[in-house]
Amino acid sequence: MVERFSFELSAVDGAARIGVIHTPRGEIRTPAFMPVGTAGTVKAMMPESVRATGADILLGNTYHLMLRPTAERIAALGGLHRFMNWERPILTDSGGFQVMSLASLRKLTEEGVRFASHIDGSKHLLTPERSMEIQRLLGSDIVMAFDECPALPAEDKVVAESMRMSMRWARRSREAFGDRPGYALFGIMQGGVTRDLREESAAALREIGFEGYAIGGLAVGEGQEAMFGVLDYAPGFLPEDRPRYLMGVGKPDDIVGAVERGVDMMDCVLPSRSGRTGQGWTRRGSVNLRNARHRDDPRPLDEACSCPACRQYSRAYLHHVVKADEIIGSMLLTWHNLQYYQDLMAGLRAAIAAGRLAAFVAEFHATRAEGDIEPL
Amino acid sequence: MVERFSFELSAVDGAARIGVIHTPRGEIRTPAFMPVGTAGTVKAMMPESVRATGADILLGNTYHLMLRPTAERIAALGGLHRFMNWERPILTDSGGFQVMSLASLRKLTEEGVRFASHIDGSKHLLTPERSMEIQRLLGSDIVMAFDECPALPAEDKVVAESMRMSMRWARRSREAFGDRPGYALFGIMQGGVTRDLREESAAALREIGFEGYAIGGLAVGEGQEAMFGVLDYAPGFLPEDRPRYLMGVGKPDDIVGAVERGVDMMDCVLPSRSGRTGQGWTRRGSVNLRNARHRDDPRPLDEACSCPACRQYSRAYLHHVVKADEIIGSMLLTWHNLQYYQDLMAGLRAAIAAGRLAAFVAEFHATRAEGDIEPL
Repeated sequence: MVERFSFELSAVDGAARIGVIHTPRGEIRTPAFMPVGTAGTVKAMMPESVRATGADILLGNTYHLMLRPTAERIAALGGLHRFMNWERPILTDSGGFQVMSLASLRKLTEEGVRFASHIDGSKHLLTPERSMEIQRLLGSDIVMAFDECPALPAEDKVVAESMRMSMRWARRSREAFGDRPGYALFGIMQGGVTRDLREESAAALREIGFEGYAIGGLAVGEGQEAMFGVLDYAPGFLPEDRPRYLMGVGKPDDIVGAVERGVDMMDCVLPSRSGRTGQGWTRRGSVNLRNARHRDDPRPLDEACSCPACRQYSRAYLHHVVKADEIIGSMLLTWHNLQYYQDLMAGLRAAIAAGRLAAFVAEFHATRAEGDIEPL
Repeated sequence: MVERFSFELSAVDGAARIGVIHTPRGEIRTPAFMPVGTAGTVKAMMPESVRATGADILLGNTYHLMLRPTAERIAALGGLHRFMNWERPILTDSGGFQVMSLASLRKLTEEGVRFASHIDGSKHLLTPERSMEIQRLLGSDIVMAFDECPALPAEDKVVAESMRMSMRWARRSREAFGDRPGYALFGIMQGGVTRDLREESAAALREIGFEGYAIGGLAVGEGQEAMFGVLDYAPGFLPEDRPRYLMGVGKPDDIVGAVERGVDMMDCVLPSRSGRTGQGWTRRGSVNLRNARHRDDPRPLDEACSCPACRQYSRAYLHHVVKADEIIGSMLLTWHNLQYYQDLMAGLRAAIAAGRLAAFVAEFHATRAEGDIEPL
């Protein structure tokens, strides 16, 4: 068993790269997509099924877990891995982003954020130091620095001030994290869609020094074109020998574009959340299973997919259980969507390894452009 | 592969019996508990997980399936087994009971029941002939005769008239079922809690002749004592060499009492339904996982249970996911409850085989009398 956290880059194709993150809890093949296990569960999935899709690492949400069941309780129960029955690596966010989007009565100061729980109204203070403590109590393998990020579009001045406070918080996070062999702390680059601010943020983070670097403050309303615009230069501001994590991204074409631009890790609730609303992501695009066109269709959702939803059930069955609000509809579509995302990552890794990423991406877009299979 | 439906009795212990029902789709070990797959799914369970608990057969509901997705659609898609990915035996009810409990604008005549769908208000007519046709379209292995049953308590006159119409419907069901090797038609005894009516009903059914016999009209409000009172004599009115099915039963102690009295098959939504409301059935009784006493409890729900909920998760985790309304709470507790029910059936079968049913039942009650484990 590896005792230290390390990142090994094994091949590049243009700006894209493949590698392996070594942790005491197992390897993470990059580029990696991390399913989101918000409150101690990837919704509607057994963890062994998440693993069966090919996921090497899950993401947990500090904000949700600190409120319920609380970090102290999870620590007393042996940590988040044991609690949720996932023994492989876990990355936790810092709580900052979700406090700003979910909590009420928020008050942001240099110290941190005071807020009221969306569950029971209880009062809390989240600071860089408290975020580090919570993530340590959870037993997170990859800990995220505590940061703050404005919704876009926003004025440069607002983005700059916010970014500079996040950089001060990044330093406090590093100091509070301490020396924890086998665990990693990632800094988070901010700066909106402004190149100079991104460069300034990256320089500040490199001076502090982290085991990995996230690109934060994207996928917050700026649109894919603006996001790709930032990704055309931002990864280049970060050390080549450390993993680069694009937070909260995204749709399949966002992922492909990010990987092309040198991103190593991503996470998003999209595949699991949309699986609970009857949406399936396939090689030929997104399919709404509620649509009556599927009612009599004996064909699988995606004939190229190996997941149980596609191997063992028809579109007609998926339509039926989605319409009838049966839990198995959420279970099957979430499984399928996570499988599709992991298959996409495996395809991207294989293409980068073979130096044929451009051809893979061209085929990815061409297949999607065909649209869903014709009705029978 | 067996081509015919048959029942083989292998041992008795008092009135209790064990045996095997042979069908072309596999064997059913009796006494058998049948999980309910209402609308083409045992709610919150993958069918392979239902099978993993030890279930040999599922029950499907004609009323739900005829309305959505419709029997004709399921037939066009290859039948209910393929549709819901359960290749082992399926028993379907006749629809009569659920029409009376779920539909609106019901009108009962000698012909059958006219009603409006609870889903979309559409008008339907269910008769013995139509019920046989629907169950044939579904591909059900064990078809139930179309019957009607009054809620108890009810006057003898009402119960008698209802029973006699059900017996006329039983004959029409037999005639409409026709000659279908490998498939079985079960008649349903009615007569409330009145011995003479039960005897009259059984005689009528035996004269028609069925592959198996159900005891209907119980578990409809009469209470356990009255139900056991009927079960003290009613199974004896039925042919010894055919399976006896007690419909809609029940709680674990109902099941034990029914098996003691010679019942071979049962079904109930209780283990799955209560799993979706945070209730776990254990060897020591029923446990409400919502209760705060479980919040910090690292112990399994039932330490003697082999299901994933008990092997891989703490009571604290189950409490957390139930409180947070996470789907995995329903998934894990349904799995546990179905596992507990199947373990109970396996225990009953082994005890009957060994001629030690009385000792098994005494221990069953003694363990439950201890109550749940003490808080830590």
